Amino acid sequence: MPHRYFTKEIAGGHAVLSGEDAHHLARVMRAKLGQTVILCDGNAVEYTGTITAFGPDTVEFAVSEGYPTAAEPGVEMTLFVGYPKQDKLEQILQHGTELGIAHFVPFFSRYCVAAPKKEEQKNARYARIVLEAAKQAGRGVIPEVALALENFGAVCRALKGFDAVLFFYECGGVSLASALKAYRAAKPGTAPRPKLALITGAEGGFAPEEAAAAAAAGAVTVGLGPRILRCETAPLAAAAAVLALTENLE
Amino acid sequence: MPHRYFTKEIAGGHAVLSGEDAHHLARVMRAKLGQTVILCDGNAVEYTGTITAFGPDTVEFAVSEGYPTAAEPGVEMTLFVGYPKQDKLEQILQHGTELGIAHFVPFFSRYCVAAPKKEEQKNARYARIVLEAAKQAGRGVIPEVALALENFGAVCRALKGFDAVLFFYECGGVSLASALKAYRAAKPGTAPRPKLALITGAEGGFAPEEAAAAAAAGAVTVGLGPRILRCETAPLAAAAAVLALTENLE
Repeated sequence: MPHRYFTKEIAGGHAVLSGEDAHHLARVMRAKLGQTVILCDGNAVEYTGTITAFGPDTVEFAVSEGYPTAAEPGVEMTLFVGYPKQDKLEQILQHGTELGIAHFVPFFSRYCVAAPKKEEQKNARYARIVLEAAKQAGRGVIPEVALALENFGAVCRALKGFDAVLFFYECGGVSLASALKAYRAAKPGTAPRPKLALITGAEGGFAPEEAAAAAAAGAVTVGLGPRILRCETAPLAAAAAVLALTENLE
Repeated sequence: MPHRYFTKEIAGGHAVLSGEDAHHLARVMRAKLGQTVILCDGNAVEYTGTITAFGPDTVEFAVSEGYPTAAEPGVEMTLFVGYPKQDKLEQILQHGTELGIAHFVPFFSRYCVAAPKKEEQKNARYARIVLEAAKQAGRGVIPEVALALENFGAVCRALKGFDAVLFFYECGGVSLASALKAYRAAKPGTAPRPKLALITGAEGGFAPEEAAAAAAAGAVTVGLGPRILRCETAPLAAAAAVLALTENLE
């Protein structure tokens, strides 16, 4: 399988790779003139790039016609995730990127144990984790990680514009299959790529008022089975289940 | 929610908790006479236990009629998992237990990077990890962790007696939904609790000969989508998808 790189510098049949990726391709992989790699613009379009020149810190390519990446799921998933302790958010970002999540929005809520601290610095680190995971997973889009929302009210105000909002509640709810079926029946043949919001909690779960607020903001309350999932397991199980039930895990 | 403990000492309307669990209930939770907890025999039967006495290292109970646990999925999943590097097997055991896997069978294969070393000692540690995860997740059964199989041939010889064997291959295969549908059509109304084998690889994936050997041993080759999942993500995504598609995640 040829190597894959993200670059924004693709235009007019020509592309340039610079920085660490250029170093990796030229020095680590010892690529030769005429060798091909896959270049992705980070916007779900890929190109076959043929190396035409090596600069001191760049690699240049002649590129083919762009073609849509096959790696993006047919649903655009935004994960609203309760801010967990320790490095669990990093695990969720990494594995969630592999599974195809498009946007991550961490949030603080009533029962969160983690407290906001140096969030801007951490956000830059989270963006790097997601970029590396996107490269490894062969994603066509680099997921975005938002700065953490400060409370659950802010989450509820951010739920407009989705085709379906799924609130995964530890106290249970309807089945995910029936929630997905109901939204499809309600909006037949709408968005070609439906926007789904998935909401999962931190270690402490959700306060009853938060569950009520989510429902009032249009979320469907969904259960993930009778077993108690950890806060780092629930979002990955939810995403995998959404993919399986929408024919996006095949 | 009352606390839950596993104990084998349940008979004739009477039960005993000893060791660390007794210490936890008596000293840490400061339980009182007459208080109730849920006792589980580890064989999917639960009891309501009312504390009748505290011994020096034990807690004694009067117990109700046993009732089947609600936490076990309607499919009995055995995960054959390629032995990964570092602590990834521990992550898979922990989160796989939350998701309801009944048996874990690690194995070495052609492209495994990890090498077998002190496996008996490690197995004891794995059993403790799974026990703690089973307690936390509210499982009715404590999953078993087998000693690692030494090569993929041993995996293929262990695939008898399953209702379906799903070989998750990084080079793709049929969809999980169609694989599950096909086995149901082939065996209508058989096992009330079907036994499913899930096979996922280590970092290096599978050799083509191993994929062929799995198919020859009766496995259905299944894909998990066009994104490249890490070896610690694939088994959890596979288990969550199986649960979602068999109505066991609700």
